[in-house]
Amino acid sequence: MKIIKLAAMTCLSVFVFVNGVIPTATIADESQRQIGYGRGGRMQGGAVSERSKEPIRPIPISFDYDTAKIELGKKLFFEPRLSKSGWITCNSCHNLSTGGVDNLPTSIGHKWMLGPINSPTVLNAKFNLAQFWDGRAKDLKEQAKGPIANPMEMASNHGLAVGVLQSIPAYVRWFKEVYKDEKITIDNVADAIAAFEETLTTPNSRFDAWLNGYDDKISESEWQGYDLFKAKVCITCHNGFGVGGNSFHKFGVAKPYDKDTQTLGRYNVTKDEKDKYVFKVPLLRNIELTAPYFHDASVWSLREAVNTMAEYQLGVALTDDETDKIVAFLRTLTGDQPSILFPILPPSNENTPKPNRN
Amino acid sequence: MKIIKLAAMTCLSVFVFVNGVIPTATIADESQRQIGYGRGGRMQGGAVSERSKEPIRPIPISFDYDTAKIELGKKLFFEPRLSKSGWITCNSCHNLSTGGVDNLPTSIGHKWMLGPINSPTVLNAKFNLAQFWDGRAKDLKEQAKGPIANPMEMASNHGLAVGVLQSIPAYVRWFKEVYKDEKITIDNVADAIAAFEETLTTPNSRFDAWLNGYDDKISESEWQGYDLFKAKVCITCHNGFGVGGNSFHKFGVAKPYDKDTQTLGRYNVTKDEKDKYVFKVPLLRNIELTAPYFHDASVWSLREAVNTMAEYQLGVALTDDETDKIVAFLRTLTGDQPSILFPILPPSNENTPKPNRN
Repeated sequence: MKIIKLAAMTCLSVFVFVNGVIPTATIADESQRQIGYGRGGRMQGGAVSERSKEPIRPIPISFDYDTAKIELGKKLFFEPRLSKSGWITCNSCHNLSTGGVDNLPTSIGHKWMLGPINSPTVLNAKFNLAQFWDGRAKDLKEQAKGPIANPMEMASNHGLAVGVLQSIPAYVRWFKEVYKDEKITIDNVADAIAAFEETLTTPNSRFDAWLNGYDDKISESEWQGYDLFKAKVCITCHNGFGVGGNSFHKFGVAKPYDKDTQTLGRYNVTKDEKDKYVFKVPLLRNIELTAPYFHDASVWSLREAVNTMAEYQLGVALTDDETDKIVAFLRTLTGDQPSILFPILPPSNENTPKPNRN
Repeated sequence: MKIIKLAAMTCLSVFVFVNGVIPTATIADESQRQIGYGRGGRMQGGAVSERSKEPIRPIPISFDYDTAKIELGKKLFFEPRLSKSGWITCNSCHNLSTGGVDNLPTSIGHKWMLGPINSPTVLNAKFNLAQFWDGRAKDLKEQAKGPIANPMEMASNHGLAVGVLQSIPAYVRWFKEVYKDEKITIDNVADAIAAFEETLTTPNSRFDAWLNGYDDKISESEWQGYDLFKAKVCITCHNGFGVGGNSFHKFGVAKPYDKDTQTLGRYNVTKDEKDKYVFKVPLLRNIELTAPYFHDASVWSLREAVNTMAEYQLGVALTDDETDKIVAFLRTLTGDQPSILFPILPPSNENTPKPNRN
């Protein structure tokens, strides 16, 4: 059914102007809108423009992609030969089957080395103002280079990774098609991966449908949860397209965060004392899929995560009912996960550097 | 384009009788057949029936699948929570991006433990008379249970793996839909995985097209390679749908195999002295994708693999020209890899056993 939907969306794309944003929740809902669904009820007309002032914005749907580049980027995202072992891919830690994360406290890397920090989701990562918890990469392209050469992650190096691709005629052909150059560079590898990752957004959440005027897409208590989310000022940090990701803030504003005092966060980038324990505010899109939570993965339950935030960031204690409602609201932020046709990768040959599991 | 093709094939399936075999090479070629392509040339009519006596059989295309079951099986095939770490899947070692194998000498398992033997491909595995190199599992269903509980592979146990699935309402619903039972069993888990794996065939290779009467699909030297493959009696073991997989034979018939004397093969199952160094004959379908070769992964090049077989199994030395032609023929056995829409998996919850990386 997803295939048919994708095909339908592809057909439809010719009708959408370049980089256009479809002003309704889903393609399927377009017909509902025309037959009046979501225009009645408590909204009575003006709600769309009213909700356009909400601090959370619906994820735009874009068709303005360089198809050849994102197809190449997808192959690279699933390419185990970018790792020293020939076994670890971008998808190993940012699994598109499971919300763009590995659902582990910290990721497993080369030789089963365990990373120092929880892996953030790749879904909607384009909405982050910078990448990594400490924002040390300015964008997805810069981020993509990191894990390939990190000895605790893919443990390769840029020369080797490029050498592997350069040895495979199909890759040479694809890179030439996209970058007009037979010489593959790590910059182009990262550029293609980033281009693919930019497509990994999750539109059409129930909350986005509500933002677009479809009242019945969220329940009364979910709506109350959103009201509480604003009233308790969670919204100060968690807003915009990603419901977060657009600012850095200290973890432990109202009360020093005592569960992890080792990870210094943004300080590692700026060496500025006031940036100690400052982290990029994580995206809350699809948050129900991406446990465990926080940079230190100290919490597995979304309820507990909400209460921790209230305690350490806002200095308030929520009632059980308030927590329930905020959690219910957060669950409305789960959108359509990307439909990915699993890529078929070209084989190695006698010129391809061999994998090394050691 | 693959999506469109898949959609077209789905539409077409209603015209194909249950379990039917499409008598031409590909759907796309159907039109070519009607305009005469492949019916002319050196074949002149009778070639299809003549080639129907060839010892290699074209892979049949079947649409007789239980869709709900294979969709569930696909999810399980890509389900990291079947492993103790929550990180290793069936696809980790039988990667559908890379010919159904990991292209490693032996697979990497839990805590980076390295397996004892090269992982065979899952593609066309349904054509094997039994599973594993020593044939210790009688079918795909029996095979599927092994790695989940193998401490060197996924390192879980059947109770834990089933417990994880049972804790997730979506899985309970899917299992109930397929097996009419809310209680998930390891037997049903394996049954669903096996059902998915049975769909993982690779029809439409150039060689199959040739078998189906399309002369121009293979070149003169590829055809000569096939003739040599028969003349040198490789065909004695490598025949049928899988071009192998349907018999057990000793590795080292003409000359004792001296590169690995540790792995006893079929003997481990039968304890019969004459089964020492006896292995299931591997499938040669897509062989260009599945290096390194042999149970001990002792060879990375297809040329060298062919020469090794000639030396140890047949006691002959091939000329360079003969090896080249046989290799050229083997490359015609690469078929259409399965089109897999990457599954979206349901999230864990507070009742789900946590992953354990230790």
